[in-house]
Amino acid sequence: MKKIEPAILKGTRDFLPPEMAKRNYVMARMRRIFERFGYAPIETPILTPAETILGKYGEEGDRLTYHFKDAGDRDIALPYDLTVPFARYVAANYGDLPMPFKRYQIQRVWRAEKPQKGRLREFYQCDIDVVGTKSLLVEAEMARIMQEVFLALGLKEFKIKFNSRKLMNEALESFGYEKDSVAIIRVIDKMDKIGEKGVITELKEIGVREAAKLVKYLSSSDAVEHGDLGDFVKHAKAMGVEEQYLQFDPTLARGLDYYTGIIFEVVSQDSELGTICAGGRYDNLTGMFEVNAPKSADPELSGMGVAFGFERIMLLLEEKGLLKNMRPAPEVLVTIFDETMVGDSLEIYKALAAAGVNTEIYFEPVKLDKQLKYADKKGIAYVVVCGPKERDNYELVLKDMQTGKQETLSLEDLVARLK
Amino acid sequence: MKKIEPAILKGTRDFLPPEMAKRNYVMARMRRIFERFGYAPIETPILTPAETILGKYGEEGDRLTYHFKDAGDRDIALPYDLTVPFARYVAANYGDLPMPFKRYQIQRVWRAEKPQKGRLREFYQCDIDVVGTKSLLVEAEMARIMQEVFLALGLKEFKIKFNSRKLMNEALESFGYEKDSVAIIRVIDKMDKIGEKGVITELKEIGVREAAKLVKYLSSSDAVEHGDLGDFVKHAKAMGVEEQYLQFDPTLARGLDYYTGIIFEVVSQDSELGTICAGGRYDNLTGMFEVNAPKSADPELSGMGVAFGFERIMLLLEEKGLLKNMRPAPEVLVTIFDETMVGDSLEIYKALAAAGVNTEIYFEPVKLDKQLKYADKKGIAYVVVCGPKERDNYELVLKDMQTGKQETLSLEDLVARLK
Repeated sequence: MKKIEPAILKGTRDFLPPEMAKRNYVMARMRRIFERFGYAPIETPILTPAETILGKYGEEGDRLTYHFKDAGDRDIALPYDLTVPFARYVAANYGDLPMPFKRYQIQRVWRAEKPQKGRLREFYQCDIDVVGTKSLLVEAEMARIMQEVFLALGLKEFKIKFNSRKLMNEALESFGYEKDSVAIIRVIDKMDKIGEKGVITELKEIGVREAAKLVKYLSSSDAVEHGDLGDFVKHAKAMGVEEQYLQFDPTLARGLDYYTGIIFEVVSQDSELGTICAGGRYDNLTGMFEVNAPKSADPELSGMGVAFGFERIMLLLEEKGLLKNMRPAPEVLVTIFDETMVGDSLEIYKALAAAGVNTEIYFEPVKLDKQLKYADKKGIAYVVVCGPKERDNYELVLKDMQTGKQETLSLEDLVARLK
Repeated sequence: MKKIEPAILKGTRDFLPPEMAKRNYVMARMRRIFERFGYAPIETPILTPAETILGKYGEEGDRLTYHFKDAGDRDIALPYDLTVPFARYVAANYGDLPMPFKRYQIQRVWRAEKPQKGRLREFYQCDIDVVGTKSLLVEAEMARIMQEVFLALGLKEFKIKFNSRKLMNEALESFGYEKDSVAIIRVIDKMDKIGEKGVITELKEIGVREAAKLVKYLSSSDAVEHGDLGDFVKHAKAMGVEEQYLQFDPTLARGLDYYTGIIFEVVSQDSELGTICAGGRYDNLTGMFEVNAPKSADPELSGMGVAFGFERIMLLLEEKGLLKNMRPAPEVLVTIFDETMVGDSLEIYKALAAAGVNTEIYFEPVKLDKQLKYADKKGIAYVVVCGPKERDNYELVLKDMQTGKQETLSLEDLVARLK
């Protein structure tokens, strides 16, 4: 039979154990924090009726949605992000959810994009959302969670930038630009990339005559004292967000149309990786979905969502050297000296396992050197060797794989040491 | 705009928080045990070139593989199980893996099946495999892991049935049936369902003249003393597998063609759910994939794999009532008495959160009753209430949501109590 290449699709990945250990570590940290704050995990399907995804992200989004006709002639799409699936989930399960509903979700999403460096076809997203309340305590809690997550991962140089789309819209209104607000906000959103001058030029190009004046007005930082911004800052501090991590950015805009209140963007300040987390307040999560709730219930569907850029956070943590020594290895490898010593090694193994030590036994009595190499490759901390000489003395040798130091001790002492 | 149904595809599922809490609990238990024994997690892609999946499971398997042509005219399939993706993974990454390689994998798989009760289109599988050694210590370790997993989940009435395909093949050979062995084994595999009489009848139908004699020969249990079975039992006991969970079943066959040694099947004895875990020894994992290793390396690709029937295990644990009180709730909800008390409630919240207590604050000063209902729906254990009276006395009320008992205490005492 002709053998075939063990190929994978471009833009998808095999995860080897060392990489998995790092990803699982980061995910576990995030999950733990979300759960501490009362966010519950949910999951939504991967195979999705296309009509529940297409048409929700605009033309560009539709183009980038991975969709196809399946063998049963159904139009299927794979999730483009976790927001629309969450909206559909809330609409479908409204009556069964405690309201306000706080959830987190870590799942793969897909993009029908030509894969290239930093652009994958299949990758993870990690979202938290609260739906069912207009309270600004939500914004404050989310700032606290962002702070908690990035500190827990060892990052220090980050800022939680915030602004208010509400305020921005009011400003545009006062200038008489409410009709062009979406286009104007898209330009202002480029402030980081093209600078104030660039923004003014582009604004003029789309017909904003008072461009310079508008930018100056928007850039003033007085606003932080007022309206939703003022309340947010007060609540955030009361909830334990430290001032050093908060940064009011009056020109922060976030491209997406559906934000209506406070918006966030977390940036790492000592890296080129840019935004690692972003989100904002929206008025009506479920949008074009019919909500499974009695009309009389008049469900409140305002909410707030934040997406952690999981893949980018992984890159950042690698860059900063914060993911070292994270191999998914057991504590100790029991070697097998030779054929005659299998039973003795199993006895050591059983005693260690019974004491709850993460223990592995090498499966074959091959050369000791090969067994040590295996331990080294897997990042196992200790190796136990027991030959006929040690057995006759009721002893064994414990080798520390980091230092190379060896010592001879009894099985009881070994168990006591590693327990 | 016309609103659309928040529908999902038949055979896929939305997971609500209580269900997620149970599934995550079971998965975490399993992961923990696999890692304790040195099995490392890996992940393989979901979007897969169809040629790496189709043609590996026979005609029936191909028919049930979910595959399609995508917008880029690529033939794509979604994983049918975790064995073939693992085989491809080992072939692709051989040089980077410690050998023998021990991995576990918990991922979704798909079936192009008409969904019906108990048959899903999208569901989870959970596999462990060791590849790269013929050592029977692997079989013994896997028996230990199965025992560990089911005991950890609270099950008691299970048997790890085992047999040897090698021995079975030898028996068939001694009867002169080696050419028809696949067909014969498929019939013998039905012993549990159609009984000895049914098996003899069906064997006769496919031309086995000495059917009764063959069945009698295969049913004898002497074999357990010999060959790979004898060594397996000896090693399993030495590794801590208890005799009460092991059961030699000389007619156990497992339908799949590729098993060549010890085979397993775990059954729950006090349930109709049947097999909850199964697997066996195979000779050549990577089969039709080119292995990325120098020819001189002559890689050993014998191995052993066991699949835990995750969805069926969940059903069994539900049936046995072993998944009660598993809601992903924080410990305590801080209520907000009224608009004037927001700051006081935040102070309580901040003190609890700083002490590491899993704490949630209700976002709005609505009626207390509504806030208590929320805590109840989420399964939160304690609720803190602080009104103007309590504040003036530097006190608060702690309510135990299970017993309904209330007590008045200071913030310091509250923190000390819940910490």
